[in-house]
Amino acid sequence: MRMRKKSWAEPFLMENDHFVIQEPQNNSGHWKEVLKCDTLHVEIGCGKGDYFIQMSTMDPSVGWIGIEKDRNVAAVAAKKALEVTTSNRCMIALDAEQIDSWFKEGEIDTIHLNFSDPWPKSGYKKRRLSHGNFLNKYKTLLKDHGQIVMKTDNQGLFEFSLVEFSQNGWLLEDVSVDFRRNEHPEDAISEYEAKFMSLGQPIYRAIFVCKK
Amino acid sequence: MRMRKKSWAEPFLMENDHFVIQEPQNNSGHWKEVLKCDTLHVEIGCGKGDYFIQMSTMDPSVGWIGIEKDRNVAAVAAKKALEVTTSNRCMIALDAEQIDSWFKEGEIDTIHLNFSDPWPKSGYKKRRLSHGNFLNKYKTLLKDHGQIVMKTDNQGLFEFSLVEFSQNGWLLEDVSVDFRRNEHPEDAISEYEAKFMSLGQPIYRAIFVCKK
Repeated sequence: MRMRKKSWAEPFLMENDHFVIQEPQNNSGHWKEVLKCDTLHVEIGCGKGDYFIQMSTMDPSVGWIGIEKDRNVAAVAAKKALEVTTSNRCMIALDAEQIDSWFKEGEIDTIHLNFSDPWPKSGYKKRRLSHGNFLNKYKTLLKDHGQIVMKTDNQGLFEFSLVEFSQNGWLLEDVSVDFRRNEHPEDAISEYEAKFMSLGQPIYRAIFVCKK
Repeated sequence: MRMRKKSWAEPFLMENDHFVIQEPQNNSGHWKEVLKCDTLHVEIGCGKGDYFIQMSTMDPSVGWIGIEKDRNVAAVAAKKALEVTTSNRCMIALDAEQIDSWFKEGEIDTIHLNFSDPWPKSGYKKRRLSHGNFLNKYKTLLKDHGQIVMKTDNQGLFEFSLVEFSQNGWLLEDVSVDFRRNEHPEDAISEYEAKFMSLGQPIYRAIFVCKK
């Protein structure tokens, strides 16, 4: 569901360009220096930012970048993230279609896809963030044996993704068809995920490993 | 749950040795002639036989072999199967551990694993019919691009299997985390599966392809 346009969003994103990186290609190859970390995690489609904000607060030694193309939504995330300033996170408020120009080959350790838009109609499947075209981009940007961690409530997207990763040469490292049946204190729960959990819907999760 | 010993089972299996093949190694390489078919499907752990009996009745051009090691259970399946004599099915009432001596390399088109024993304790995982040791045997017996079709109600077994197949070089062709949310008239429903469906539990299903 598209968020209503917020008049403050655009100026806010521009003013906070130390946190919302306007020209991410300029940091290509230097993200770990920028974020003062040895490990780089990137969440594509971070929405209101709950996940990467919690995760980056939990372990300050890991650098996190939240990518969100809807600039109204990204502004909400940025505002929330900036309430506690830490040096190990930042955001990119642009379309991840361009992701391959923002990072150097092998620069990313882990990519997170949380509750991505399922684009249920077959005609739009190329827009799914787990479509083969995206997987090939991710493969270039991830280090060898880098991982993609995916969570979703959407059965169709989950099923599509399991097949798509397999057919594109990725290994399945771990999978759960009801991730919240066990406690996972190491994993943050966004407001969005909590809503589905409260409805009793299973959360699907998979970790895929990139073979180069 | 183990079935109570039936005194009629053993004599019945021995008397019907035209249908319950006592020395399957003697048919190795000749199963398609024996069953008068071009395509060979094998169900490992066929239980009371509902699935392979219905499937072999639905399409008489496909040959089916039901394997069940519990001879009391196998006798129930055989009795049911023999009520309608068709030439495209038979049974083996032995432990599938020996399966590699019963078939020639590449002789099988499709293997079915329906509601296999999940052996939930980690110490027994080698007994799971989707353990890597079994997968290697199946790979030898299946034709190139042959398939394994797996259904289960057990989350743990399903998750284990998805990872195990991936890590052993199989491709995921199709997957469903709630197979019965759509109609599948091409697929038989055993009494066992119907019981889980009536409880509203999802049926998990995956098709894996053998790459040689």
